Amino acid sequence: MSKTNDKPDSLTPKPILELYSFGEQHFEKHLIQDLDALKPFLEKKDLKFWLNISSIHDSNLILEIADLLSIHPMVIEDITNTSQRPKIEEFDDHIFVLVKMLYSKNSISEIQTEQVSILFGQNYILSFQETPQDIFDNVRIRLENPKGKMRKLGSDYFTYVLVDAIIDEYFGILELISDTVEKYDDQILQNKSNINLNTIHHQRKTLRRIRSSIWPLRELISIWKKSEHPLIKRKNMTYINDIYEHTIEILEGLELQRETMNSLAELYMTQLSIKQNEVMKTLTVIATIFIPLTFIAGIYGMNFKFMPELEWKYSYPTLWLIFILITVMMIRYFKQKKWF
Amino acid sequence: MSKTNDKPDSLTPKPILELYSFGEQHFEKHLIQDLDALKPFLEKKDLKFWLNISSIHDSNLILEIADLLSIHPMVIEDITNTSQRPKIEEFDDHIFVLVKMLYSKNSISEIQTEQVSILFGQNYILSFQETPQDIFDNVRIRLENPKGKMRKLGSDYFTYVLVDAIIDEYFGILELISDTVEKYDDQILQNKSNINLNTIHHQRKTLRRIRSSIWPLRELISIWKKSEHPLIKRKNMTYINDIYEHTIEILEGLELQRETMNSLAELYMTQLSIKQNEVMKTLTVIATIFIPLTFIAGIYGMNFKFMPELEWKYSYPTLWLIFILITVMMIRYFKQKKWF
Amino acid sequence: MSKTNDKPDSLTPKPILELYSFGEQHFEKHLIQDLDALKPFLEKKDLKFWLNISSIHDSNLILEIADLLSIHPMVIEDITNTSQRPKIEEFDDHIFVLVKMLYSKNSISEIQTEQVSILFGQNYILSFQETPQDIFDNVRIRLENPKGKMRKLGSDYFTYVLVDAIIDEYFGILELISDTVEKYDDQILQNKSNINLNTIHHQRKTLRRIRSSIWPLRELISIWKKSEHPLIKRKNMTYINDIYEHTIEILEGLELQRETMNSLAELYMTQLSIKQNEVMKTLTVIATIFIPLTFIAGIYGMNFKFMPELEWKYSYPTLWLIFILITVMMIRYFKQKKWF
Amino acid sequence: MSKTNDKPDSLTPKPILELYSFGEQHFEKHLIQDLDALKPFLEKKDLKFWLNISSIHDSNLILEIADLLSIHPMVIEDITNTSQRPKIEEFDDHIFVLVKMLYSKNSISEIQTEQVSILFGQNYILSFQETPQDIFDNVRIRLENPKGKMRKLGSDYFTYVLVDAIIDEYFGILELISDTVEKYDDQILQNKSNINLNTIHHQRKTLRRIRSSIWPLRELISIWKKSEHPLIKRKNMTYINDIYEHTIEILEGLELQRETMNSLAELYMTQLSIKQNEVMKTLTVIATIFIPLTFIAGIYGMNFKFMPELEWKYSYPTLWLIFILITVMMIRYFKQKKWF
Amino acid sequence: MSKTNDKPDSLTPKPILELYSFGEQHFEKHLIQDLDALKPFLEKKDLKFWLNISSIHDSNLILEIADLLSIHPMVIEDITNTSQRPKIEEFDDHIFVLVKMLYSKNSISEIQTEQVSILFGQNYILSFQETPQDIFDNVRIRLENPKGKMRKLGSDYFTYVLVDAIIDEYFGILELISDTVEKYDDQILQNKSNINLNTIHHQRKTLRRIRSSIWPLRELISIWKKSEHPLIKRKNMTYINDIYEHTIEILEGLELQRETMNSLAELYMTQLSIKQNEVMKTLTVIATIFIPLTFIAGIYGMNFKFMPELEWKYSYPTLWLIFILITVMMIRYFKQKKWF
Repeated sequence: MSKTNDKPDSLTPKPILELYSFGEQHFEKHLIQDLDALKPFLEKKDLKFWLNISSIHDSNLILEIADLLSIHPMVIEDITNTSQRPKIEEFDDHIFVLVKMLYSKNSISEIQTEQVSILFGQNYILSFQETPQDIFDNVRIRLENPKGKMRKLGSDYFTYVLVDAIIDEYFGILELISDTVEKYDDQILQNKSNINLNTIHHQRKTLRRIRSSIWPLRELISIWKKSEHPLIKRKNMTYINDIYEHTIEILEGLELQRETMNSLAELYMTQLSIKQNEVMKTLTVIATIFIPLTFIAGIYGMNFKFMPELEWKYSYPTLWLIFILITVMMIRYFKQKKWF
Repeated sequence: MSKTNDKPDSLTPKPILELYSFGEQHFEKHLIQDLDALKPFLEKKDLKFWLNISSIHDSNLILEIADLLSIHPMVIEDITNTSQRPKIEEFDDHIFVLVKMLYSKNSISEIQTEQVSILFGQNYILSFQETPQDIFDNVRIRLENPKGKMRKLGSDYFTYVLVDAIIDEYFGILELISDTVEKYDDQILQNKSNINLNTIHHQRKTLRRIRSSIWPLRELISIWKKSEHPLIKRKNMTYINDIYEHTIEILEGLELQRETMNSLAELYMTQLSIKQNEVMKTLTVIATIFIPLTFIAGIYGMNFKFMPELEWKYSYPTLWLIFILITVMMIRYFKQKKWF
Repeated sequence: MSKTNDKPDSLTPKPILELYSFGEQHFEKHLIQDLDALKPFLEKKDLKFWLNISSIHDSNLILEIADLLSIHPMVIEDITNTSQRPKIEEFDDHIFVLVKMLYSKNSISEIQTEQVSILFGQNYILSFQETPQDIFDNVRIRLENPKGKMRKLGSDYFTYVLVDAIIDEYFGILELISDTVEKYDDQILQNKSNINLNTIHHQRKTLRRIRSSIWPLRELISIWKKSEHPLIKRKNMTYINDIYEHTIEILEGLELQRETMNSLAELYMTQLSIKQNEVMKTLTVIATIFIPLTFIAGIYGMNFKFMPELEWKYSYPTLWLIFILITVMMIRYFKQKKWF
Repeated sequence: MSKTNDKPDSLTPKPILELYSFGEQHFEKHLIQDLDALKPFLEKKDLKFWLNISSIHDSNLILEIADLLSIHPMVIEDITNTSQRPKIEEFDDHIFVLVKMLYSKNSISEIQTEQVSILFGQNYILSFQETPQDIFDNVRIRLENPKGKMRKLGSDYFTYVLVDAIIDEYFGILELISDTVEKYDDQILQNKSNINLNTIHHQRKTLRRIRSSIWPLRELISIWKKSEHPLIKRKNMTYINDIYEHTIEILEGLELQRETMNSLAELYMTQLSIKQNEVMKTLTVIATIFIPLTFIAGIYGMNFKFMPELEWKYSYPTLWLIFILITVMMIRYFKQKKWF
Repeated sequence: MSKTNDKPDSLTPKPILELYSFGEQHFEKHLIQDLDALKPFLEKKDLKFWLNISSIHDSNLILEIADLLSIHPMVIEDITNTSQRPKIEEFDDHIFVLVKMLYSKNSISEIQTEQVSILFGQNYILSFQETPQDIFDNVRIRLENPKGKMRKLGSDYFTYVLVDAIIDEYFGILELISDTVEKYDDQILQNKSNINLNTIHHQRKTLRRIRSSIWPLRELISIWKKSEHPLIKRKNMTYINDIYEHTIEILEGLELQRETMNSLAELYMTQLSIKQNEVMKTLTVIATIFIPLTFIAGIYGMNFKFMPELEWKYSYPTLWLIFILITVMMIRYFKQKKWF
């Protein structure tokens, strides 16, 4: 009941309503501004229409539509509240499907989530986008094709095509993620230290966020598959299976990327330990060789009156021999321990 | 059978009993002090009433109510024992629903849990709060609206509205948690070392505690959805689906926060390792350069009688050259190893 | 078939058999020594009896009882073999329930596990304890109450009361664990280094052991709930739901403690790393400052004949200036790196 | 709908179509170039044929086949799009099975994945390979055997044989992986430091990739087992169970390898820590012994006018005694601490 | 179809075939060499027989048996191929059960896995062992007992006894593992550094291997329990429940050991960190105290002409005071930091 962000302020421009009326032999397109223009199409029982509304901020408009098609108030709330999980809800004469669209221009960090609500009845399909996006362009083209299945098959097939268009976008996102992970993979494997851990942390957050947008789709589709609603036809089940397969594929792909990311983070930590080990070995080798030598030099730097060695002629070269001997022995010891 | 904390001591003030009697055309509100005032409303079969009791410590009162409405002793125990898990239990002529309310003033650490028990029959709804809280204010306003659905639909819808009011509070809590996690995220990413690990540890504990308060709701609602009790009407199922969706949403949100917190703790550890590596490198570079030099200086600090170099005129500048040479070579070596 | 530890040696004292014969208007208690005293009560079909046997080591006795009540040999084996998992098994005219009792005097490390077997038929309840424990004291008191439900409801209710008494003990154990974990929590958060890691390790083992004793109860109760055995009455299902809720509550509580313990161990490790980091920083700061200074002092400790600086009047104070300058610069550098 | 990579460019050579027409008493083999040669075999209802197409890039050919056998367009898409997950799809008069073939020449890193699509109807089996591979050689031999079951049993059995040939390859791959993991195991256990962590990282990635190719097979087979399609005969279920068992065996084998790999990575990290500990101990022992000694030597290297010890005759040998004493005590202390 | 390792080479000795013919009043035992001796027993419908074959390498023999009892070729393959997963398979007039036997002489590392196949029909039980093992000794004894249930109950009960004998061995293995883990536990807790990490790694591998041998038993038994095959009698279900309970118990025991092992490995790592911390602290304390002192001594070892302190009479004792002062302050600082 909470969390609605409908801002019906007068500043937002009147949303564009694309109306497509179509039948097997018929196709017309209208850009309408108010619902009066829609009413005649409601009567034509032999034709179907698709109404695409590319904004959900004009709540009056949505309430009008709800009135016109006697939509449950709960559905209206779901359409206008953009923090919903993907879901399907069946009503007597229409079915409500809500999915998340993902799109991005170039990089993972710019991935945007948008909510798309679809409502279909016997002879109409309504779709609500948060902002005008071009994901349905391909659908429009297919609809213009008079021999296409969209003209012939029912509104559940039409909804399938819309959902499929959205899921197709996911593959692009998945590829974007794969490429990024692959790039990190290369950088870490080549031991480039300029990798930014914070970025990995953010990638993981993005991955989790995307996953939580797609995950509920599984449930949605499995409800669809089991549904016995008259609007959902058995013969179109192959298509539903298809988007089910795609969803599973996307989720498995995301999981694979997540695991690779975890494995990368682990590898990074191990490399860090290896490097630290190397640093420590260097310090230890140098210190272990020179600290005893310095001590010996220190001894003969003492100013005692009575130090017999100081007077002896060969003390100095002898000491050098000792220095070299100690060093060689130490190096041998470290070599044997494989610290070099 | 254990763990009841009913303290019916005479000091606790008599709890306030808010009584709302309502029908489609009817609405009255009473603040009553004892149950005698309630009895007449029990008779009015054409009206429903909602009795909100904002204290569970007067066990006599609760036993009286139980007597009046022939409530199962197990339910009485559940109402007065505040360590119950959320649950639903069906009886012949009433249904018992127990949920946890969460509220907080400002910070995560102040999140309080309170138990709310709801019992509804054909024409009554009883709700028991641990302490007088204002979560049902909105419900009261909606109830006063003569055109609202609360007046028309059954007591299961009324219960839905109460539970929904409680779940709405969860979203506030979730937001509070998200904000806190986001704050930590920023602090860790900016490498601010003043972050307090203990706080993260406590956040995790809070998260776990909240989760365990909400998690059983899933089961509760799924029992509700499958219920064939006459008090639960099919036509109100859309509303139940709605709170189901909200519960899942909250749980997924909590899970997301938990994962982010884990990822943050891991990031913190990695940063710690990186810092340690840096510290070690500094030590190693300085020590590795100067320890051999100090040794050489130590050699010529020895007091042997016969050290030819001491007498030689250019010894001192030559040694400086050697010092500089060694330093440059070392620095080059470290640069090549990327320790700078 | 294996793992029986029945030691029917003649040294173990004859176990005490408490016999309670009861009906709605009837109650008598006997301490009997052999089964002949039991036989008359088997005949009284209008009365029920409860036989509590506080030892399972007299296998002859148990075989006699089995004979008397025609109990399946598998059940006998289960009763005498104390390494069984909790389970329920239905037979034609009786039902066998096996649960684990947990009790402890003061600390987690002293938690004991004991097996309690319950067998109930139409008009009898047998309970077998490993050793005489007082967990059923409360049951005895309730049984003496002539108005109590134990006198009226069936033997499945009686079994519920026994199992509930056992589960009630779990809450005490859970509280004991919570207190211990809370204590560790405080100690680690306050960075007291005297915490004993081995104790944490043992706590975890105890937690796992307890969990594995309670976990199978879920299955047991869910079989009970689904059972269609004539001895299990629908109307008593509320009580079964109650112990189901309690079991889940205990298990969730244990899980919470386990997670807190893991989180504590992790926190401990992180604190260790932070401390090590601090130690390393101290070493590095001191070494990095003084090693170069010592080198410089070493230079002017050399005994070369021709070292112009040695003769110069202001060499010594100049060098002090250089020492101070280097130190200040180093400290500044470390401050900037936040190593202080 | 996306992700097709059919490149019907004119350069790819015309794929080879192997046609096997067979019955219990009949067997003939043809290499055909176009589908006209196939048509006569479609008519012979008393014979079955197997058409193996070793390329999926000639989309015209595949569309022609689809036309000839009235295959659903979705299936055509699945055949030509090689990024599909293994699946089974039932149609009125044929069943579509898509699996992944894995093969490798020598090492894990060269493991290739290829898609094999099988379509079988009452009297035909079509199989599509991405590239001409020899995995079906064994099938061909068995088919030539006039007494073999392939001639007698239905096309579902024939499909089983094809899938089984593919799954058989998995065992080889699994063995390859086991050998590699075993090799790493040996190397790490023998503490050979030349192990390449990056290789482990890549092995894990390969393991994940292979697993994701095989995992969906479980679902595929379980759908097959539950299927009530007339083409799937109950009496051949034993064979399906067989490939189910094999798939589970492969997956469990992969899981075992994955766990061993994780355990190895962990072991490697621990060994690293142990080594670092050893390095640190060496440094600490040497430094802790010689730093105080050097200090003492330094004291008597000071040039104060008034240092009584300098004049004393036995200072020098006394100091040597002190040096030796300190060293011995230190070594004892370290021995006691087990740092040696 | 793959992975058979039947080596029917002529060198392997003719396997021994133990034949037990029995009825309620009848028992005879024969050691037969070929199947001709078996045939007469096939006719006796009033008697059952158990044929135990302690080798699976004579494939001719197994084929002969298969012929005699018309066993499915798939089963023959399963019997001779020792890399099968435990499973149950039902046929018209017999049921095939395949389980894994585990046995060990003394230590975990010597645990051997062997495959045991059991095939039972109305009046016969066949069992195939890989090598002659004595696990069925107890079964033989029980069979000789004329009053035993093995003589009376059906061949499914007989199979239960065989499987139970195999599962009984698991308890010994589990105990062996517990003892080993307990031993490690003690060693690590007492901080004995001579523990061999590689051994832990191998234990884990063994644990995983054993688990994968036992895990499929759950599925096997649950299929058995749900089976409606006429050879499986309802009244013997208590026995099946018994082996189900045992299997779960074993698996939970293994899981407990696995968790303890993980917890031990973690504890070991933490101890390593604690030790490293201690080493570092020692180094830091010594270095931090003596490095500044050495520097000061170094200053007064310089040979400048003009160093006023050198001439001053009390310089040397003053310096000693300074040395002591610095040391005391340092030690206090470290004490306060709890580095001692």
